[in-house]
Amino acid sequence: MNVFSPSELGAYCKNVLVASGVDDGCAQAVVEVLIDADLTGVSTHGVSRMSIYMERMAKGLVSKGNNIKIEQEGPSSVVIDAGNTLGAPSAKFAMETCIKKAAETGCCFATVKHSNHFGAAAFYTKLAAKHGMIGFTCTNLTGKIAPFGSAEPFMGTNPVSVSAPSNGKPVVLDMTPSVVALGKLILAQKLGQSIPLGWALDKDGKPTTDPVEGRKGSLIPIGGPKGSGIAIMVEVLSGILSGAGCAPQLHDLYEFDAPQGVGHFMGAIDVSHFLDLDAFKTAMSDMIGQIKGLRKAEGFGEILMPGELELNRAETNVENGIELPDPVYQELLELGKPYGLSL
Amino acid sequence: MNVFSPSELGAYCKNVLVASGVDDGCAQAVVEVLIDADLTGVSTHGVSRMSIYMERMAKGLVSKGNNIKIEQEGPSSVVIDAGNTLGAPSAKFAMETCIKKAAETGCCFATVKHSNHFGAAAFYTKLAAKHGMIGFTCTNLTGKIAPFGSAEPFMGTNPVSVSAPSNGKPVVLDMTPSVVALGKLILAQKLGQSIPLGWALDKDGKPTTDPVEGRKGSLIPIGGPKGSGIAIMVEVLSGILSGAGCAPQLHDLYEFDAPQGVGHFMGAIDVSHFLDLDAFKTAMSDMIGQIKGLRKAEGFGEILMPGELELNRAETNVENGIELPDPVYQELLELGKPYGLSL
Repeated sequence: MNVFSPSELGAYCKNVLVASGVDDGCAQAVVEVLIDADLTGVSTHGVSRMSIYMERMAKGLVSKGNNIKIEQEGPSSVVIDAGNTLGAPSAKFAMETCIKKAAETGCCFATVKHSNHFGAAAFYTKLAAKHGMIGFTCTNLTGKIAPFGSAEPFMGTNPVSVSAPSNGKPVVLDMTPSVVALGKLILAQKLGQSIPLGWALDKDGKPTTDPVEGRKGSLIPIGGPKGSGIAIMVEVLSGILSGAGCAPQLHDLYEFDAPQGVGHFMGAIDVSHFLDLDAFKTAMSDMIGQIKGLRKAEGFGEILMPGELELNRAETNVENGIELPDPVYQELLELGKPYGLSL
Repeated sequence: MNVFSPSELGAYCKNVLVASGVDDGCAQAVVEVLIDADLTGVSTHGVSRMSIYMERMAKGLVSKGNNIKIEQEGPSSVVIDAGNTLGAPSAKFAMETCIKKAAETGCCFATVKHSNHFGAAAFYTKLAAKHGMIGFTCTNLTGKIAPFGSAEPFMGTNPVSVSAPSNGKPVVLDMTPSVVALGKLILAQKLGQSIPLGWALDKDGKPTTDPVEGRKGSLIPIGGPKGSGIAIMVEVLSGILSGAGCAPQLHDLYEFDAPQGVGHFMGAIDVSHFLDLDAFKTAMSDMIGQIKGLRKAEGFGEILMPGELELNRAETNVENGIELPDPVYQELLELGKPYGLSL
């Protein structure tokens, strides 16, 4: 079994990044974001992304340096040009700046342009929650969701995350506005399975049960015009307000034609400017207790708060270590070899 | 046909409110919000609400005066106690205060507690868009949505609205996190029709096609845990951060046991602190043009942006007037009679 402590796995990944020429602070941020995802069991956004990040940097599509610049700022606003820096350090810097300013003014929002894949959105909103704030983060990505009424994709799978602190675990919402992630279609195709109606449209905008046709078409948003509207608003905030551009102008993480150029939008609302933080946390814990104490629906053994499953997994994995599937472990080993590093 | 110009209908409603003792400014705000809803064709939130507002005030459950107080404020935060003032003036004051502060700092958010039904959430975010800002508004209401995994309702139908300006019409998202509004179950019951699976759960948390059983149970959120998570976050922002309390502590608009006590959360993000406003509006109009120019899905004659249908209707109704169904017209006439007012 390839099981590693978070610190051991993180140190190895950081050493590999730094050995390849990545700025120390940037490498640190990337590792924090990836390890947090693996700890929470969201392994699609964990260290399995190391190889694509390294590959893009080797091809000159992502900068190894820290080019993050504040272009403009006000008491409660920050406009950031990431300058094609890695996504994690760019987004983390944006949220940390928001947290500092929100402590002074009550809230602060930041836009980030010319950025890259930033990992799991929840990382950044949990950062705000740790500081007694409500965090908000969204990002745009290449087009996969068709606007309601269209047969063609336009918006990205544009995740949105909101987190709020409590006396116990924070409540952490992290969702895409599509019914399922693209990965579910890819998996069904690999397994030769059909997909349920309601997941995807084919290239003519007709509902399909064929994952191959769905991949040529688009993902269906949750709640029809509602999820479509959420995905459009993420384009407005992450794409237009940031100056990054909308999904069709962006480039895919797994294509090597150009820098991704994605935009982020994030912010923090400082609870203490509205309500005593302890009173807020206690009211949060009361609400959580009430919700978890409701009668369960048929087929449910427990009512889980947003993010609870992931935070429970993190508690277990901090104790027991992170287990890597063999292909991911082998990939990581390969990445270290040129620098004489081993895990 | 009972067709009235917006100004004629608004003046009558305002005169009735003022004659009954409502503060002039509060009456003005209520009328603006209701007339805007009727103009956009959202007649469920239009002047048809006059009678319940008047009835609650007559019963002493809503104040006729303006008791709105800023309890606490920072450069980008406002904490408001509505003091059981009507919802529209309370929410409008909150958004106007956010707009003023956001112009200085970049963004501002407000909480409102001890408030009442504020009409359509879109009114307030459109106000921000008119000022070149991105508006955000949500409110909690009595419990109708079950948390994902539960058989009992907890969260309200908690609408969320976001608006952003363009060179033409703004983009206006205004949605509840449930698949359908409660009104659709009430209508199906009246018509003796069944409802599609996926709208509601019965009191045991089982999917039902019977609107009567659905009304005893709960509304299903869009996207399962996603819509459930959105509704919970509205409770966090409107209920907990404001100090209003969560849905189970609130009171229904159509029950006469106590003041509603609902909370609102709203804010404005000033585009000009991030990007030149003209550049933003042009990019918005470009995006709108691109989306509307996409291939249509089967069965769609046009791709509509969020809020476009409503804004189109408003253009027509400004020209042609607002048509009131006879029962609503009769109800309005009754309201004016005690004061010798007629429409």
